[in-house]
Amino acid sequence: MTDDNTRPNIKLFSLNSNRELAEKISKAVGVPLGKATTKKFSDDEIKISVDESIRGTEVYVIQSISDPVNTNLMELLIMVDALRRASAGSINVVIPYYGYSRADRKARSREPITAKLLSSFLEMDGVDRVVTLDLHADQIQGFFDIPVDHLRAARLLAKFFESKHGKDDLVIISPDHASVSRARTFAELLDAPIAIIDNRSPEDANTIPESVIGDVEGKRAVVVDDMIDTAIKTQIASETLKKAGASEVYAVATHAIFSGDAVKRLEEAPIKNVIVTDSIKLSDEHKFDKLELVSVDKLFGEAINLIHNQQSVGKLFGR
Amino acid sequence: MTDDNTRPNIKLFSLNSNRELAEKISKAVGVPLGKATTKKFSDDEIKISVDESIRGTEVYVIQSISDPVNTNLMELLIMVDALRRASAGSINVVIPYYGYSRADRKARSREPITAKLLSSFLEMDGVDRVVTLDLHADQIQGFFDIPVDHLRAARLLAKFFESKHGKDDLVIISPDHASVSRARTFAELLDAPIAIIDNRSPEDANTIPESVIGDVEGKRAVVVDDMIDTAIKTQIASETLKKAGASEVYAVATHAIFSGDAVKRLEEAPIKNVIVTDSIKLSDEHKFDKLELVSVDKLFGEAINLIHNQQSVGKLFGR
Amino acid sequence: MTDDNTRPNIKLFSLNSNRELAEKISKAVGVPLGKATTKKFSDDEIKISVDESIRGTEVYVIQSISDPVNTNLMELLIMVDALRRASAGSINVVIPYYGYSRADRKARSREPITAKLLSSFLEMDGVDRVVTLDLHADQIQGFFDIPVDHLRAARLLAKFFESKHGKDDLVIISPDHASVSRARTFAELLDAPIAIIDNRSPEDANTIPESVIGDVEGKRAVVVDDMIDTAIKTQIASETLKKAGASEVYAVATHAIFSGDAVKRLEEAPIKNVIVTDSIKLSDEHKFDKLELVSVDKLFGEAINLIHNQQSVGKLFGR
Amino acid sequence: MTDDNTRPNIKLFSLNSNRELAEKISKAVGVPLGKATTKKFSDDEIKISVDESIRGTEVYVIQSISDPVNTNLMELLIMVDALRRASAGSINVVIPYYGYSRADRKARSREPITAKLLSSFLEMDGVDRVVTLDLHADQIQGFFDIPVDHLRAARLLAKFFESKHGKDDLVIISPDHASVSRARTFAELLDAPIAIIDNRSPEDANTIPESVIGDVEGKRAVVVDDMIDTAIKTQIASETLKKAGASEVYAVATHAIFSGDAVKRLEEAPIKNVIVTDSIKLSDEHKFDKLELVSVDKLFGEAINLIHNQQSVGKLFGR
Amino acid sequence: MTDDNTRPNIKLFSLNSNRELAEKISKAVGVPLGKATTKKFSDDEIKISVDESIRGTEVYVIQSISDPVNTNLMELLIMVDALRRASAGSINVVIPYYGYSRADRKARSREPITAKLLSSFLEMDGVDRVVTLDLHADQIQGFFDIPVDHLRAARLLAKFFESKHGKDDLVIISPDHASVSRARTFAELLDAPIAIIDNRSPEDANTIPESVIGDVEGKRAVVVDDMIDTAIKTQIASETLKKAGASEVYAVATHAIFSGDAVKRLEEAPIKNVIVTDSIKLSDEHKFDKLELVSVDKLFGEAINLIHNQQSVGKLFGR
Amino acid sequence: MTDDNTRPNIKLFSLNSNRELAEKISKAVGVPLGKATTKKFSDDEIKISVDESIRGTEVYVIQSISDPVNTNLMELLIMVDALRRASAGSINVVIPYYGYSRADRKARSREPITAKLLSSFLEMDGVDRVVTLDLHADQIQGFFDIPVDHLRAARLLAKFFESKHGKDDLVIISPDHASVSRARTFAELLDAPIAIIDNRSPEDANTIPESVIGDVEGKRAVVVDDMIDTAIKTQIASETLKKAGASEVYAVATHAIFSGDAVKRLEEAPIKNVIVTDSIKLSDEHKFDKLELVSVDKLFGEAINLIHNQQSVGKLFGR
Repeated sequence: MTDDNTRPNIKLFSLNSNRELAEKISKAVGVPLGKATTKKFSDDEIKISVDESIRGTEVYVIQSISDPVNTNLMELLIMVDALRRASAGSINVVIPYYGYSRADRKARSREPITAKLLSSFLEMDGVDRVVTLDLHADQIQGFFDIPVDHLRAARLLAKFFESKHGKDDLVIISPDHASVSRARTFAELLDAPIAIIDNRSPEDANTIPESVIGDVEGKRAVVVDDMIDTAIKTQIASETLKKAGASEVYAVATHAIFSGDAVKRLEEAPIKNVIVTDSIKLSDEHKFDKLELVSVDKLFGEAINLIHNQQSVGKLFGR
Repeated sequence: MTDDNTRPNIKLFSLNSNRELAEKISKAVGVPLGKATTKKFSDDEIKISVDESIRGTEVYVIQSISDPVNTNLMELLIMVDALRRASAGSINVVIPYYGYSRADRKARSREPITAKLLSSFLEMDGVDRVVTLDLHADQIQGFFDIPVDHLRAARLLAKFFESKHGKDDLVIISPDHASVSRARTFAELLDAPIAIIDNRSPEDANTIPESVIGDVEGKRAVVVDDMIDTAIKTQIASETLKKAGASEVYAVATHAIFSGDAVKRLEEAPIKNVIVTDSIKLSDEHKFDKLELVSVDKLFGEAINLIHNQQSVGKLFGR
Repeated sequence: MTDDNTRPNIKLFSLNSNRELAEKISKAVGVPLGKATTKKFSDDEIKISVDESIRGTEVYVIQSISDPVNTNLMELLIMVDALRRASAGSINVVIPYYGYSRADRKARSREPITAKLLSSFLEMDGVDRVVTLDLHADQIQGFFDIPVDHLRAARLLAKFFESKHGKDDLVIISPDHASVSRARTFAELLDAPIAIIDNRSPEDANTIPESVIGDVEGKRAVVVDDMIDTAIKTQIASETLKKAGASEVYAVATHAIFSGDAVKRLEEAPIKNVIVTDSIKLSDEHKFDKLELVSVDKLFGEAINLIHNQQSVGKLFGR
Repeated sequence: MTDDNTRPNIKLFSLNSNRELAEKISKAVGVPLGKATTKKFSDDEIKISVDESIRGTEVYVIQSISDPVNTNLMELLIMVDALRRASAGSINVVIPYYGYSRADRKARSREPITAKLLSSFLEMDGVDRVVTLDLHADQIQGFFDIPVDHLRAARLLAKFFESKHGKDDLVIISPDHASVSRARTFAELLDAPIAIIDNRSPEDANTIPESVIGDVEGKRAVVVDDMIDTAIKTQIASETLKKAGASEVYAVATHAIFSGDAVKRLEEAPIKNVIVTDSIKLSDEHKFDKLELVSVDKLFGEAINLIHNQQSVGKLFGR
Repeated sequence: MTDDNTRPNIKLFSLNSNRELAEKISKAVGVPLGKATTKKFSDDEIKISVDESIRGTEVYVIQSISDPVNTNLMELLIMVDALRRASAGSINVVIPYYGYSRADRKARSREPITAKLLSSFLEMDGVDRVVTLDLHADQIQGFFDIPVDHLRAARLLAKFFESKHGKDDLVIISPDHASVSRARTFAELLDAPIAIIDNRSPEDANTIPESVIGDVEGKRAVVVDDMIDTAIKTQIASETLKKAGASEVYAVATHAIFSGDAVKRLEEAPIKNVIVTDSIKLSDEHKFDKLELVSVDKLFGEAINLIHNQQSVGKLFGR
Repeated sequence: MTDDNTRPNIKLFSLNSNRELAEKISKAVGVPLGKATTKKFSDDEIKISVDESIRGTEVYVIQSISDPVNTNLMELLIMVDALRRASAGSINVVIPYYGYSRADRKARSREPITAKLLSSFLEMDGVDRVVTLDLHADQIQGFFDIPVDHLRAARLLAKFFESKHGKDDLVIISPDHASVSRARTFAELLDAPIAIIDNRSPEDANTIPESVIGDVEGKRAVVVDDMIDTAIKTQIASETLKKAGASEVYAVATHAIFSGDAVKRLEEAPIKNVIVTDSIKLSDEHKFDKLELVSVDKLFGEAINLIHNQQSVGKLFGR
């Protein structure tokens, strides 16, 4: 870690959602994880104490807002309260997976916009900067008034894909109407054309027949999404693509939520490999043969070092 | 329900922490519960939609911040976001049990004050008024800048106690140093003296010998607290009181958290009866023979009607 | 206008960006436009005075943030300041075209998010509600914490299209990767399939060859977008579609910005008709033979009446 | 004063409530008091000017919010306004006695919570940190969102007591129901048991007979409180204790408000010594033979040095 | 009092700075003063309780921020806190004399702007509207973001002057460089020319010779100011005018602060009459033979009734 | 540029309103202008990107809010948004001419206070400090809560005047009732008496006869104002002065708005010279023979260096 002597000290803390990644980030930064105790009472109340002085320090708290999202979110918010009251010099929260990011607009009357609620809570709590990865919609940056360093995993994933699976005969697939730009970006990194799964009733994804817009016949199709949650969408996409003549199907995503029967679905679907990052901690039962894991540890580590040394993080924003 | 024609319409909604009490409050108010859908995804994300127009309406949302506290809290905060965006006339949250209320101060360096964090979130979210019951510390009212109608269960509990168990030979017990005022108030309602359990190391409640300050010999001792959580404190108090010569021991509390082995402890302790309210929903395994339940439905119902009709709620504040 | 006697009085004001539409909305609501004077000094400073009492009144100010956007925006913000200081009961701003809405995220390092800046200014200025039409991204709703009634012109436009041009042999075209959902919605209203213009370098739209994903051969192609600005994108789409075998090309959009050479481009492009709404005032030189205009006066009029009478506006949100 | 070269300069200012203590703190810190002029006009308006540049400096303003509390409070708030507008680097207010701290909750309907009002004013005024001593209730920390370094005088007072009066045969007395925890803490520092004055009508303290819970016969009783105001409570406690057989009575408190006839009451009461700190400036007529004064100068001096050097202040929080 | 049935109830409260005027305003409005108790402790702490329900009510609190300004200001701020927490429908503060209004700008480096501090406190405290009279500078309205109804006493004073002293041979005098506009306005109401006292060193008003710009020879000179504080400026003006040949001198001002030796100075100065309003309560020793008092009771009464009935107050703003 | 090594880096940026002055200030500071791109779309939308890293840097943005004021204001606000989101260390805005400053109070009912609106926007946008010159009213400083370094051009202008035109037989003229203090200050710098133009109907400046209060016969009259806008006031003043016997007339002002026919009026009026600063960029057609230009480059340059080195700027505040 290259450090500038006049800069305040830096401290990293991990909370409980993804301690494994936090430890790898800590190594990449070259700064050990600070000491803090989190306790959960039997009614789920969280108690935190920071066990070393952070007065005047530049603090980074690493926490994914992943399953269980409400508990992990509250853990983060309570930690920030403790840090602020303990006179932290600045509070940077590193959120590899920003939960509730799909609740980013009112799709119907009288719905909440929970992703905005989270950003309001974080700002009100005294957070100075958010470092995050592949938000569901870029506009979520605008939910914040504080700086958001929005990292992108696309290059990492594309490079990994190319090294493992080559780039011949590829077609990049957007699994729905809203993700075509993401597919287009990925396609450019791999010099491939795109195609779109045209599901007419996104509300009722598992029953309605789908079609493919664009040419996939005889090609190796790579379904690109920001996250895989229940994997229903991925599964249907893979079946549709196979029916349409794709030779192979891969699924690539940044965030592996893998909720409900996701793993079973992915295992059974006509998918060759599933490539995801470790932005969310995967338990052992979430790991399966087809799965290929790309770590974002160095991406976050580099970002933290650049921020601490007040250098541009821009090169890590590029898709 | 007596209503004034020029007042805006009133609507009541229940969330999921204590729907049973919400239904009883709804009856007491004379207004049916409104329609809203709450869904929980497998990663714990909550999705809410309000299923009837509340534009311009005076809305009351009933939700205890009880186990699981983080989820129930987020459910409340998300609901308020939906109501505010849907142009509710005013948003009143009815919180029979206000979780995290023990995290009301920094006991040690670098601790959070989570009870304040909750109040900040509620205010920022657009809540216009909080109606709640027996806060752990009265000062929590001051964590809010919006009106807080702080109801008290003491009279209800004292009246119930007297009718069931009489008021002869009573002594009211404060189970620790911080609750003597609460015991004093209860003692006045039952014309009884008080005594205090003197535990010198509150940190390590289950190992250290305790003593009683004040006279309990031959008396019926009533241990009064705002909440029973793990019941360790109650159990030790009851044993200490018995050793000190108390003829009978009762435990009275507003909030029955009953976490961990609380029920087992209460059943085995030398306690005749445990009297609590339904501010927190008790599952069947939390109900046991000694338990006596006092409903706060009418207390909240009357408060809501007074608020809606813009009359003083003061008489419900009296301890 | 059906009015409820106990509701506060309603007043409508128009500023200078689109007085024509404001007058039609005023008729649709059944309430005349209020009196206000706006003066512009020679250095562009705006002076406003409201010339009738609005104390306690529910005020609606109608202003598109269209060319010249900065002046029209400031006019709106200054008017709201005057209304707030003059004790308006509530301030509702009706923004048929919300300018700067494309600046809704940081596409590159060190860019502003101006759409969020506008929402912050409006909230800080004391606006109680925003009524607007077809925001560039739905997430802009989340830039606000106040209620946003987000109307949609899709049904109006689809109905108009069908009545004038029928629905045989249609294919709905998304002119870029980011607008496929909008095309899909429009396609459903007209029972048509979709196709996508695949422009690999959106940055440099006028030089790079494009291709069409999906089948347009022999079909009547309808390019659907939320706005037509310079019309370069529309022109290229139309040429690409013609080359790909489309029999006819139509262009449909809510907001007719028509900046620079847009009119010339649209006249010369192989487009049969251009269908837009009057959310932005079109000067005479912006009107041309192919142009078909659909008024959103009744849409806004109905919204205002529903809001004033505290009824659900939900049915006007449907795309 | 040990100083770190890269830290901003530190400046200390005293206002008028307790200049004596400020000068002693200034010596303990090793930094002279800065120059500022405060003038009071005949209608009580305060005019302040800071007479040396504080641009970019870490400023500490020392002011007790003591009699006359409103004037001293306003003096502090106006000073902070001047410092903020003059580009102070950070503004730390050192408040040895935080007035209005008893107004920390609504005891009855329609009462203010003035202690919270003060904290809101200080935060809004741009204060970055509060350093204070023995708040009436710990929860007042939660009235702030900024860091509060909450110092404790208990050790200082206990150590002084032991050195002057020994620790044989002591019993520590809580003079009312709300202060038992404070007595318990003090008792632990002196290895003594506790007892409680049981006044059934706190509202009407000077007429109603009191009793003592706990054993005081033949013991030296030390009445511990956070403040002595009118001294009525202390006087009654001392008489009750004497009647109950205490051999001697001492009164210990952090804050010597000594309002009204307090001095006369303390002199006449059966109290051997009154031990207080200099958190509030005592005029000569407030000093009397029995009085023993413990200075908090070094406590605050050490806190300021630790804060300035960004080291943990935690050890000064311990009771 | 003419009242509209659908409007919320109105309640008036007086605090302690000018109860006499409050009672006269209460009569002018036709609504009796509400019950509230204010107590001052011996260290100057203020305790307030509102003794009748004000839930949902439109409340007006009448309080001049006059000597002792800090106490009267805090009394007002604490009252507003109590009203807000007690669910007042709206809180209107009526401030006949707005203290600290001369601290409206930084005249020198490192000075506060206390007038702005006051407005920030009032807004933060939840005040909905300010009704005040003749602010020292009109720009103070801009210190607020809430509505300010800024009444003017000029007409009242001019009408009174004319009826008592006629309007022949008058010249209206600005006693310093900053008040010429005020003199000009008054001059127009009485069809008179103006002249200006030219004091070259305003800082040192009582030693430096002054001159008069404009013609006063043989005329009746009326020195017009917004306030008379120490009366030094008025005294010197009167002497300068006499020396310059004025036949008679009158002093007219809205706010009679009369601090220090003001009364003595005015009595001894060559002034025929001093005409002021009762915006500030005058004690008996502040009344003297030359003094003529004009009540602003009806001006405020009419303003309150117009506000309550949601009619324009504009006609009371005219100078 | 003298720089302190431990201070953050400094960067200067110019926007488009007065790039000429910005370049001269940059030279005076000794720091080159940073790279930023501003683009304006044909509908007037502004797009900005900052083209070098400013992470942690002390940034100064130079922009006059001059014609076209709304565009220049938005350019500034958008730039600040970009800087804040890009993690600027601190954001200082340098505003040589603060537009809308005459809209500093409500002169009539239902008018806005736009000068306050601007200050609210700047604060909300994250500006840390404002450096500006000769505000129309000093009270505008109080519209801000952040530090305002308010520079004065009077000395610069007086010194220039004396060196070019000498100081014999001068009389300094206030062209209206509100500017007498400004004239008085200027008069002291040149040891001259003052006189006032007495226009009885300021509303209708160009038709009503005026008179002069004070003696101008045979003297060289210098009309001093903060700005010359349409120049109607200046023209009438010069004619009135000539008629009253002034031997020569000069016009001095800080801000040369020169809107409408100002230049023609000034050329034709009986004015010998017009002396202004370059706070506003003058186009070639705004320059004419009589015009004398004084640059404020060094004034701002010195201010920026003092601020950056955390030294007092007070000496530049003196008029």
